[in-house]
This record gives sequence, structure tokens and C-alpha cells, in this order.
Amino acid sequence: MAFSHRHLLGINGLTEMDIQFLLDRSDEAVQLSRQREKKTSTLRGLTQINLFFEASTRTQASFELAGKRLGADVMNMSVGNSSVKKGETLIDTAMTLNAMHPDILIVRHGSAGAAALLAQKVGCSVVNAGDGAHEHPTQALLDALTIRRAKGRIAGLTVAICGDVLHSRVARSNIILLNALGARVRAVAPSTLLPAGAERMGVEVFQTMEEGLKDADVVMMLRLQRERMAGLFVPSVREYFHYFGLDARKLALARDDALVMHPGPMNRGVEIASEIADGPQSVIDTQVEMGVAVRMAVMETLMQSADGETHS
Amino acid sequence: MAFSHRHLLGINGLTEMDIQFLLDRSDEAVQLSRQREKKTSTLRGLTQINLFFEASTRTQASFELAGKRLGADVMNMSVGNSSVKKGETLIDTAMTLNAMHPDILIVRHGSAGAAALLAQKVGCSVVNAGDGAHEHPTQALLDALTIRRAKGRIAGLTVAICGDVLHSRVARSNIILLNALGARVRAVAPSTLLPAGAERMGVEVFQTMEEGLKDADVVMMLRLQRERMAGLFVPSVREYFHYFGLDARKLALARDDALVMHPGPMNRGVEIASEIADGPQSVIDTQVEMGVAVRMAVMETLMQSADGETHS
Amino acid sequence: MAFSHRHLLGINGLTEMDIQFLLDRSDEAVQLSRQREKKTSTLRGLTQINLFFEASTRTQASFELAGKRLGADVMNMSVGNSSVKKGETLIDTAMTLNAMHPDILIVRHGSAGAAALLAQKVGCSVVNAGDGAHEHPTQALLDALTIRRAKGRIAGLTVAICGDVLHSRVARSNIILLNALGARVRAVAPSTLLPAGAERMGVEVFQTMEEGLKDADVVMMLRLQRERMAGLFVPSVREYFHYFGLDARKLALARDDALVMHPGPMNRGVEIASEIADGPQSVIDTQVEMGVAVRMAVMETLMQSADGETHS
Repeated sequence: MAFSHRHLLGINGLTEMDIQFLLDRSDEAVQLSRQREKKTSTLRGLTQINLFFEASTRTQASFELAGKRLGADVMNMSVGNSSVKKGETLIDTAMTLNAMHPDILIVRHGSAGAAALLAQKVGCSVVNAGDGAHEHPTQALLDALTIRRAKGRIAGLTVAICGDVLHSRVARSNIILLNALGARVRAVAPSTLLPAGAERMGVEVFQTMEEGLKDADVVMMLRLQRERMAGLFVPSVREYFHYFGLDARKLALARDDALVMHPGPMNRGVEIASEIADGPQSVIDTQVEMGVAVRMAVMETLMQSADGETHS
Repeated sequence: MAFSHRHLLGINGLTEMDIQFLLDRSDEAVQLSRQREKKTSTLRGLTQINLFFEASTRTQASFELAGKRLGADVMNMSVGNSSVKKGETLIDTAMTLNAMHPDILIVRHGSAGAAALLAQKVGCSVVNAGDGAHEHPTQALLDALTIRRAKGRIAGLTVAICGDVLHSRVARSNIILLNALGARVRAVAPSTLLPAGAERMGVEVFQTMEEGLKDADVVMMLRLQRERMAGLFVPSVREYFHYFGLDARKLALARDDALVMHPGPMNRGVEIASEIADGPQSVIDTQVEMGVAVRMAVMETLMQSADGETHS
Repeated sequence: MAFSHRHLLGINGLTEMDIQFLLDRSDEAVQLSRQREKKTSTLRGLTQINLFFEASTRTQASFELAGKRLGADVMNMSVGNSSVKKGETLIDTAMTLNAMHPDILIVRHGSAGAAALLAQKVGCSVVNAGDGAHEHPTQALLDALTIRRAKGRIAGLTVAICGDVLHSRVARSNIILLNALGARVRAVAPSTLLPAGAERMGVEVFQTMEEGLKDADVVMMLRLQRERMAGLFVPSVREYFHYFGLDARKLALARDDALVMHPGPMNRGVEIASEIADGPQSVIDTQVEMGVAVRMAVMETLMQSADGETHS
């Protein structure tokens, strides 16, 4: 089997073949969730723990349903308001859970590198569900799956990632994945919201939507995360929407069949106009549907990969 | 099959036959929960999401156990303190969950009409678990089941609904149901806690417990929800209990075999005396037991109804 | 069968034979969680409710996984911030849940005696998961299992329980259990953190670590719970660590093969030095692993005991 990783910590480190393998497998998982009986016994008897140090309704729900539909026993641990308050460290929490013999640990944490750190310590597979401004690999995979199913391919497409690229792990993971699969990636943002050295990541940088959206096949909007902008340029909502919010006028500059994407939750009227979010080019709900499928595929694959290790 | 609705949004809109059908089916579900092994596979592989915008220990628990005993995968989403804070709308939250292919969405929300609004948007069955001061249909069904099992019938009984009728979706759903099944319904409350036009709903209005409880077969107390009374007459607890709290003296005016009911959670010493809540006429715990059975019956019925749609 | 209790409310009341029976059974459960498929159907169709009035990430998780691996339907009820706020009493909450026909109720509550009170009221088995400063029996059982597996026995060992003995239900349950199994138990604490009459509990009292740890086979550290020390001597962290924190110098006074234990979550640098917590003598993670096994054994045993009652 192509895929031999034990953890999914980021898109960085995956080959193009790894990514295509996961996307192919996700295509199969999409079918399962569309049936009446949407449950298999692939992971029956295995234990999945969702360890979320940051609250996230949609991502946690997506992993929870993915695990349950695979037949795993799923346990949610929202740690924001319990043990951490008591002074317990990230590692102690993880080692405690590890001693309970989980098979998969899904981790979201506010610090870059948290998932990788845990992966070194625990005896099970770790999936990074977002670590600070670093990576969010299942989001990039679900975005890629959405694009590939709509466009038939990813190579050669022009994808404009727009907005708060600086603080976005979604952007980071997408840039790495889209480059690996041969897309042309653009970052469109005011200079204060662009990471230093964006060009070195294989990204063409634009500071206006008018330039950046021109002839794009995919317009990927990012959530404006004002809570992460302490000390930076904090635009007014109105001003931000005027220059960087996706509205009909700006979208018209992209290709006629351009996809509109957003990782959610959306700030309607801030980074995206409601009419666009709900419009015919929007695939935002499809992204959510693909999310469950991608997470099923990832967890199935990691568990088979782990079985392989054990048996060989 | 008699029942052909896809959603359960309120008692309003159900026929007498619909209601009796659900009660008959609930009678069967009561048996299941009294067995050692209290699990079927009726909803195996289906996904139930409890989407609670208002916290409710007992209602959410009742739906959760009902779903698990039917074999469904149940996911709880308490949205009060996560996505809504991030500014996500009711509809966006629902559409996100809808994209994950749930089969049943249980919704509680502070605004009247929330469940009906969602039902128009999503692809699955919606059960209203309380929407503002509008309806709480499974509560009315469990109350009716409790009465029917204790009294053998509902038609012709005199049911006194006492207390904060104005703010109570429980009262509203009960009034509609009891009228549909031929009971004589009374509302007993101070004038400030009575909805305008109560008589037009088929209710006889009384402003004292002494008059309203006379010869009643059922005394249904409501929870005093002082948090909803901003700007209204806010009685002192002592005063309220004196005039409208159910105690032995007032209960003696009802029929000797009158049932005492309360939807919970109770304010002991406010709307009901402890000795009455725990007394021989109280069926308050039975109401809770019937709640699980009614929710099982409702979800089973809706799922069969949905299958019927698909196949025909 | 030896074990005929319906509830597990404390170690007090168990015979030595009861305890050994539960430990033997726990040994079997350890194996299950180490397998790939770690699930049985022993409790299939039964309902377990975790009713936690105090938050506890690790204990609740341990009971949740234990129940799920036995095939039970597990429902978590964290009551701190919902019904209790609405003024509902402990008993009303429990009676409500009882009416939903659970088979096992796991209860944690801030008041001593809460679990025993509920056991008198409900129709199902109750497991005390910590009641005030009273008992925490599954913690004592998992500690005993950890010691017995490491040392081959408990009788005759010298166990030093160190720190905030006064406020610790863990200490209390351990003292009773270790005495029942023939260990020599020491309490090591400043006088202000020792319960009055500790000697009458069969404990030898020491006021310095230097004396108390001498030749100990097991050094059991307790969590310093400063939130429970209102009005008492509140030591500074630095001072406490100097006199009563477990570091290499103090541990050297115990036997070379002494086990280091802690119920978690640890305050590193307060009651225990990090190097000791992570050192070769530490069995802290093993305690967590044993926790799941003990809870599986306890629940299985109680359910068989309940079946026996029903059938005879």
C-alpha cells in the first residue's frame, strides 16, 4: 500500500501519491454517508479520542461522525475548561489519555507543533485537527477533494486564497497541498496579513482582489480571525469588506465557472457577501460533506497502516 | 400507515389519529426500556444530532437515550457557547450539520419558529424540542401518554394547567393536544400570566386555584420561569406559592384521584409543595419515563415515514 | 459468587475477599484494553449514566471508556452548569435520570454521602466516583491493582501516603483498603493537613517526609488541593515543595524499588518534582491504565450481581 504514515500531522511530508491515495479513498467514503445505513464496522472495537484544547463545533462534529460511522468508540475531550485550569500540562493530559489505550487521538491545540509533540509521546496514531497557525491537514484534503470532484483535476488550476493568510493554518496546509498537486496558488491579502516570504512557499502574491482573482478557477476565502490580530493592523469590518470581501463585482473577475470556497464558520458581510456564500458558484456546504468523508478515509488508512506495522 | 409527516414541529397540524398513533406506538416503547436489554437496531446506521441552543439536561438526555436505544449514532451539539459566539447564524449552523447527512435533527432554540425554519432548509427530519414560547410537542405527547395510561382515556377529562401559561410552550402544546383529544382544558393563572385570547384557544380561564382546580381530573403545574418575566409582574416566591403553588389544601379541591403533573425541573416551594410533588397522586417521574418512550416512538415513526417517501 | 453488593459506595463495607475478587477480575480486563479490538458485549443494551456534579476529565473519561468497551450505552451528564443553576436538587436530578431506566449510575459530587443518598433512592446500581472528602473507591482499587501487579502482593508492604491527607477522599479510600489487605499504612503530612484521629484509622502518622518515607515500599503522593483550604494554613508552593514535595533526595530514603504513585492531575513542582514523576520508579501512567480495567471489572460485577438478585 502506498500510504505508510502512522500519523497525519500536516500536509508537509506527504507525497503527491499519498495525497491522491487519500483522496481516492475519500471518494469511496462519500458514498457511505449518502446511504440510509451509513455505518461500517471497519474500526469496531477501536477507541478514538477527540482532544480539543480549542473549541470547534464543526471540526469536532465531523471527526465524531466519521469515527462513529466507522464503528469506533468515540470520546470527546474538550479540555479548555477542566484539567488545564487545574494546571495540568498538554503532555500530562495526553499521557493520561494514552494510558487508556486509544487507537487514534485527534488533537486541536492553539500552539504550532502541539500535534507533532504528542505524536512523539503517545503509542497511538495522531491526527492534527489544527495546531496554532501551523497546519490543518484534513481541511486541505477536504478542500482538494471538493475541487477535484467539481473540476476533475487539480493540476493546472489557478487557486486564489484570499484574506488573512498570515494567521491561517488552513491557508498554509492548502498552499502546500495545492503546490504538491500542481496547481498555481495565489495569496491575495493586504500586506499586513501576508506571511513573510510567501513567495518562497510557491505562492504568487497579490495585494488587491481585482488583480488576484483574475481568471482564477477557485476562489478560496479565509475567515477573518480578529481575535488573533492583537497589535496588528485591525481593519474595520466595513473597510475590510470593501477591499477584501468577496462580492459579485469581484467574483466576476474570476472565471465564469470559478468555485467559491470557505472553511467556515463564515463572517457574512465581512469576508464574504451573503449572496455569494449562498450563490450558484458556492461549494461551501459540499466542503463540509467532504470533510466527513476525508476524515473517515484518513482514520481508516492510518489504522490499516498501524496494523501493517504491528503484523510485519 | 396513518402517520405521514416528515417532521414533528408542533402538535398544531396533527390530527387526532396522528396523536393516537404516536401514543399507541409509545406504549410499545415503554416496554423496551423496562427490559434488561433495552436496545433495538431500528435506527442502526442512522445519525441523530441533538442541536441545543438552550441548555436542557433532561430533554437532551431523554432524546439521547431514545436514539441510542434505537441503535442510532447520536451526536450532541450544545451551541450556546461555541460557534454562535463566533457569529455563526442559526441557519449556517444547521446547513453545516445538514451537509454531514444526519437523518434526524432534534432542535431546541430560544425563538419561536426556529424548528420550522430549519425544517425548510435541511434534508432530514426535524423534531422540535422547544422553540421559544411556541411549542414543545414531545412534552405534550408524553403528558398525554401519562394521562392515558393512568386514566384509560383523555376524552372527557378535566385538565387544569396552572401557573405561568403565558410563557409556556409546554402549556401551548398541551392545550392544542388535549383539545384535539376531547379533554376539557382549563388555564389557571393570575391575569398577568395568561396569554391574550386564551379562551379562543379552547380554554376555560380561571384566576384562582380554588375555582380552577374544582373537580379536575388532572392538575398540571408549570415551572415558574422568572427569567422570562422581565418587565412583567414579578411575584415574590412566597406570595406566588400562597396563591398559585400547589399544596394539600388546594389539591383537595380536585377529584380524589386527580393526577399531579409537572414538566420539570421543579421549583419546590414555589409552584409546588414538596409533599405534593412526592405524594401518592404525583406522576412526575412517570412523565419522565414516558418521555423516553414517546421520543423513541416519534423518531421511529418519522424515519419510517421518510423511508416511505423515498421508496414511493 | 463472592461479590453480592448492588452498589459500590466506598471501600468501607467491602471484605478482603470482595476486594481480591474485584482485583482478580480487573486483571482480566487489563488484557482486553491491550488488544486491537477492545470491546465486548457484556453490557450490551444496558444504560450507564455518568452524573458528574464536579468536573473531572480523567475519571469521567475512564468510566466512559470502560462502559463503551463493555458495550453499554454511555451518557455523560455534567450538571455543574445546567439544571443545578435552575435550582433543581441532587435528588430531583437523580430521580429524573432514574425514571429513564439506567442500569448503572456513576456519581461524583462535592458532598460526602451523596452517592449513598442516591443509592437509597434509585432503582439501579450506583458507583461512587468521589463524594466530597469521603471516598473514591475505584481510585483505591486501581491503586491496589497497580501495587499488586508490580509487587506481587499487598500484605506486609509499607505504603506512605503523603501530602494533603485531610482533604483527600483518595487517601481515605486507600487507607481503608490497604489496611483490609494487610499493608502497613503511613500518613505523612504537616499537622494541619492530617485528619483528627488518623491513628484510629490504623495509620501511623509522620510529620516529616524524612521520617515517613524511610524504607517505604510505596510512596503515594496526593494532589495539593488549595481550593479546599479556605481558612486553613495555606503554604506557599515553594515552601510546600521544600518540605513535602517528592524529590530525589527524599525518595532516596524509601526502598530502592519503591513505587511512586499519584492519582493525578499532578501539580509538578508542588507535590512532586518532574524528574520523579517521569522517573523509573513512577507508575503514574500505569495507574491510569489500571483505572479503566478496574472500572470495567466493577461495572461487570455489579451488573451480574444485579442479575442474580432479579433471577433469585
